[in-house]
Amino acid sequence: MSEMTILTVEEATSLSLDVLRHNGYSLAHAEAITRSVVAAQRDECHSHGLYRLIGCVETARNAGVDTQALPVLHDQSPGVVRVDAQRGCSLLAFETGLPTLIEKARRHGLAAMAINRCFHFSALWPEVEAISSQGLVGIAMTPTHPFVAPAGGTRPLLGTNPLAFSWPRPQGMPYTFDFATSEVARGEIELHRRAGKSIPAHWAMDGEGNPTTDPAAALTGAMRTFGGHKGSALSTMIGLLAGPLIGDVLGHETAPANAEGTGKPFHGELVIALSPQAFLGSEAEHHLRHAETLFDEILDQGARLPSQRRFEARERTRRDGMRLPKGLVDELKELMR
Amino acid sequence: MSEMTILTVEEATSLSLDVLRHNGYSLAHAEAITRSVVAAQRDECHSHGLYRLIGCVETARNAGVDTQALPVLHDQSPGVVRVDAQRGCSLLAFETGLPTLIEKARRHGLAAMAINRCFHFSALWPEVEAISSQGLVGIAMTPTHPFVAPAGGTRPLLGTNPLAFSWPRPQGMPYTFDFATSEVARGEIELHRRAGKSIPAHWAMDGEGNPTTDPAAALTGAMRTFGGHKGSALSTMIGLLAGPLIGDVLGHETAPANAEGTGKPFHGELVIALSPQAFLGSEAEHHLRHAETLFDEILDQGARLPSQRRFEARERTRRDGMRLPKGLVDELKELMR
Repeated sequence: MSEMTILTVEEATSLSLDVLRHNGYSLAHAEAITRSVVAAQRDECHSHGLYRLIGCVETARNAGVDTQALPVLHDQSPGVVRVDAQRGCSLLAFETGLPTLIEKARRHGLAAMAINRCFHFSALWPEVEAISSQGLVGIAMTPTHPFVAPAGGTRPLLGTNPLAFSWPRPQGMPYTFDFATSEVARGEIELHRRAGKSIPAHWAMDGEGNPTTDPAAALTGAMRTFGGHKGSALSTMIGLLAGPLIGDVLGHETAPANAEGTGKPFHGELVIALSPQAFLGSEAEHHLRHAETLFDEILDQGARLPSQRRFEARERTRRDGMRLPKGLVDELKELMR
Repeated sequence: MSEMTILTVEEATSLSLDVLRHNGYSLAHAEAITRSVVAAQRDECHSHGLYRLIGCVETARNAGVDTQALPVLHDQSPGVVRVDAQRGCSLLAFETGLPTLIEKARRHGLAAMAINRCFHFSALWPEVEAISSQGLVGIAMTPTHPFVAPAGGTRPLLGTNPLAFSWPRPQGMPYTFDFATSEVARGEIELHRRAGKSIPAHWAMDGEGNPTTDPAAALTGAMRTFGGHKGSALSTMIGLLAGPLIGDVLGHETAPANAEGTGKPFHGELVIALSPQAFLGSEAEHHLRHAETLFDEILDQGARLPSQRRFEARERTRRDGMRLPKGLVDELKELMR
């Protein structure tokens, strides 16, 4: 067990801002990135937490991302706002477009935000929860990275294409999910390789398209979507909506742009907001309360709601602070030398 | 092998209209239902084809559905049209709202149609294809019937909650899928029971929530969603969007309303249309052409597109007419006595 250290949310925020500022990120980008990684760390989503700052710095240092980019907002149509991230990080583009998205959804019933040409590394649930926290329903999707074969295929083509959804609840936490449409996270296969363990045969295929239990062969082969041909269809839908529909690239075009693999994949993200008030007028409150019976019935069966563990972690952090490997904190401090 | 008979599309249309009119459906309802079942039969989707007329007649005879209902259109907000089916069949409500949905999507970028209080028996792909045939992207979902347990649960709660999607292609057929979020169709389990065959253990659970290979136990127990907790999350999203968001019932409330099981479940349907032209302006054509590279890559791997078999059947029907069991045609003719 590695040595752990405790940070308060304020200390983690301050560390993140310092690391990003020291490595050239503008204050606006540093703040947007910090909000996302600190939220993930607070919820004990380590893989999207402070650890991601290492990748952000690496990307800044090899000039794969524009650390100063100013997102440009286009009011495309009554229901659509487009934000050109200008090869900067997606998170500032999202924050730039969010007020317009919310306003459009409230006025029209539903609205879409297309984020284009962004460097994207973050979880989607903080974004859909930014929408549900304002009483709207949020949906988000993005098309990277092309590690996944379509059902019946043999080669990487589709992204791991995550889908996130958040439903506002009258009391307490929203109903939120955020999942990759690959059978498992790529990191899971990498962990098995490091540990010298075999993987279940339905996770991936080798370079010839045959099922494999060898994680190394899987990593040079192709991952499968979850749920067979249905998951593959869903993943294809996400690739189309968060790609050509918003004038951006397809999943298999999001691979690093240069031969050294250092250039970042710039691509798009689609965010949709729906307003129960605009759909239902004065009946909205009644129907949002009624939706609670579904959650009650799920819990009553002994099943869990998707983000329950994360919300419990959030409570724990509020009480006890964040537990981080001391090695990670040291590594982040190294990045300021 | 049962004796087969060949009908032209015109003969099938005429038979369907006669059966429905004889059993009390208004001309408008009879025509809307006929368009749907004939389209399904043409594509050799037998389970949503002319066979469904038997259920339509049964429902009309036991007064579960209003065969004369006139759908009422509410222009709810700039992006939302609501159609109250008034306890009539969903299909006429869909056709009533479609022009408004398309017009709103073209103007705003995206729009939603909420169909409320409808009797629903049809496949969703004819509806999303009605949208993609006009150059827009179509998405549809509906929350029946409550046969499915949430992941980690033990009892029926979620509907089989189908999701359909259709993407317009510059040439030829659209990219369309339409799948239930249950692991398999309920009919598949029923077929196994009739054939005295066992079912795979991951399809369903018995009344105690244990995995079962006995189809009879599965039918009185609960089906599973496809894709484990991810499929369950997706199904829950569909239940919320095509339920409380549109002011209609949840999946578990769509069970037959009376003790005899004859009263029909009236519920809602959500249809969303997105306009590439409104998202992209003059760039739309370029990006729709670019999307073709994804389909080319899928086919190039030897994988199939979701509706390929159906489109091949459509060609076959165009050439050779519809092959139907003679017994079914006789049964339909009986319904006119």
